Amino acid sequence: MILARVVGTVVSSHKPEKLNGIKLLLLEKIDPITLKGKNDFVISMDTVGAGIHEIVFYVSGSSAKYTSVTGGGLPSDSAITGIVDFIEKDGLYTYEKYKA
Amino acid sequence: MILARVVGTVVSSHKPEKLNGIKLLLLEKIDPITLKGKNDFVISMDTVGAGIHEIVFYVSGSSAKYTSVTGGGLPSDSAITGIVDFIEKDGLYTYEKYKA
Amino acid sequence: MILARVVGTVVSSHKPEKLNGIKLLLLEKIDPITLKGKNDFVISMDTVGAGIHEIVFYVSGSSAKYTSVTGGGLPSDSAITGIVDFIEKDGLYTYEKYKA
Amino acid sequence: MILARVVGTVVSSHKPEKLNGIKLLLLEKIDPITLKGKNDFVISMDTVGAGIHEIVFYVSGSSAKYTSVTGGGLPSDSAITGIVDFIEKDGLYTYEKYKA
Amino acid sequence: MILARVVGTVVSSHKPEKLNGIKLLLLEKIDPITLKGKNDFVISMDTVGAGIHEIVFYVSGSSAKYTSVTGGGLPSDSAITGIVDFIEKDGLYTYEKYKA
Repeated sequence: MILARVVGTVVSSHKPEKLNGIKLLLLEKIDPITLKGKNDFVISMDTVGAGIHEIVFYVSGSSAKYTSVTGGGLPSDSAITGIVDFIEKDGLYTYEKYKA
Repeated sequence: MILARVVGTVVSSHKPEKLNGIKLLLLEKIDPITLKGKNDFVISMDTVGAGIHEIVFYVSGSSAKYTSVTGGGLPSDSAITGIVDFIEKDGLYTYEKYKA
Repeated sequence: MILARVVGTVVSSHKPEKLNGIKLLLLEKIDPITLKGKNDFVISMDTVGAGIHEIVFYVSGSSAKYTSVTGGGLPSDSAITGIVDFIEKDGLYTYEKYKA
Repeated sequence: MILARVVGTVVSSHKPEKLNGIKLLLLEKIDPITLKGKNDFVISMDTVGAGIHEIVFYVSGSSAKYTSVTGGGLPSDSAITGIVDFIEKDGLYTYEKYKA
Repeated sequence: MILARVVGTVVSSHKPEKLNGIKLLLLEKIDPITLKGKNDFVISMDTVGAGIHEIVFYVSGSSAKYTSVTGGGLPSDSAITGIVDFIEKDGLYTYEKYKA
């Protein structure tokens, strides 16, 4: 799984019917230490109710089909599977959600 | 899923029979903020009727086999699964299809 | 799928028995516009009878197991699935096989 | 599999229920010769009881679902599957756990 | 499949039981023309009895589970599936095992 920040949304009206109702969020990958954006983006299917600017992790590849939202054979290669509460490195917090 | 612009087509007459009728589009990945091409290309199977110069997103890997077009065991690692209407970042549109 | 040129072959006499008879071609990825090699190579299983110097596309990952040649559970992560006739970008041909 | 060092943890209270009890470790990929960190991070599910600063290897992609911990359809694309005792290159140890 | 040289081994005593008896080799990817190492390493499961300094190719991703050694649901994303006899590019050998 990779850490990223929710920075926006992507909307499409021409897509397979089974994607209806799936929220497509624009994620920017971040450095887990500095939390800075890496200018590297991916569109991910939201499965946890992630909000704008939240730090999340997402799962890539065919494993992204193994959530309650993307299950049932959705063509997904990226799904957000966690909103991050905190990141700890070498005993120090680099991120705390409720302090940010 | 990754954002890209449809920039052309690839035609092959020597390919597995089950690929007959599948449209192979040449995609150039784009920056979701500036919309500029990244000079990084992929051939993707069209599943949504995407047209030249449209901005789309595509799904990679074995998940690309999970569309109505690529289902049934097609050897596909890339399928266009949406034509983008708009991209929104931090509350601002970086792309609006019907304004472009 | 990714565009590449067939530049050689790789021969192995120590490999799983089920790989016997599978042709392993050395591919060099190319820029789809200039057709120049990128000095980036992959070994791919031939499923279409590709010849030396031909431009082809190949499928990566577990999807490479979905051809008539690689089916049946072959350990393959790359299979050539088309010999390219032409590449068209923005209305112009960047490659025409029978003109080259 | 790729070599990495355990450098921290990631905690999330908003995640699919089936991820409860799974330890999410922050890994930094290392050079196998110098053992230096590459400033390239991944979140991986622990399946072996790895501890902080230990050198481990992890499996990526859908293969990460094939452990006793991540089995049963967990949305995982990275799982730690070994704590490294030693790394040997060209007859010399570049790493010995019980000497470090 | 990707070309690499066997440069060492990785030993772990803390790993899933089903990995017991699987040889984990340290591979360095090579340039197929110059045969020089790329300083890019991967741990791969040996399925062909590869020896130190031999040039091999390996299969990545979930396809690595399709060998007689890694079959049966092993958490593997890399398996050596051939020891290379020779590499030929544009009609010339860049590598011949029994001449090296």
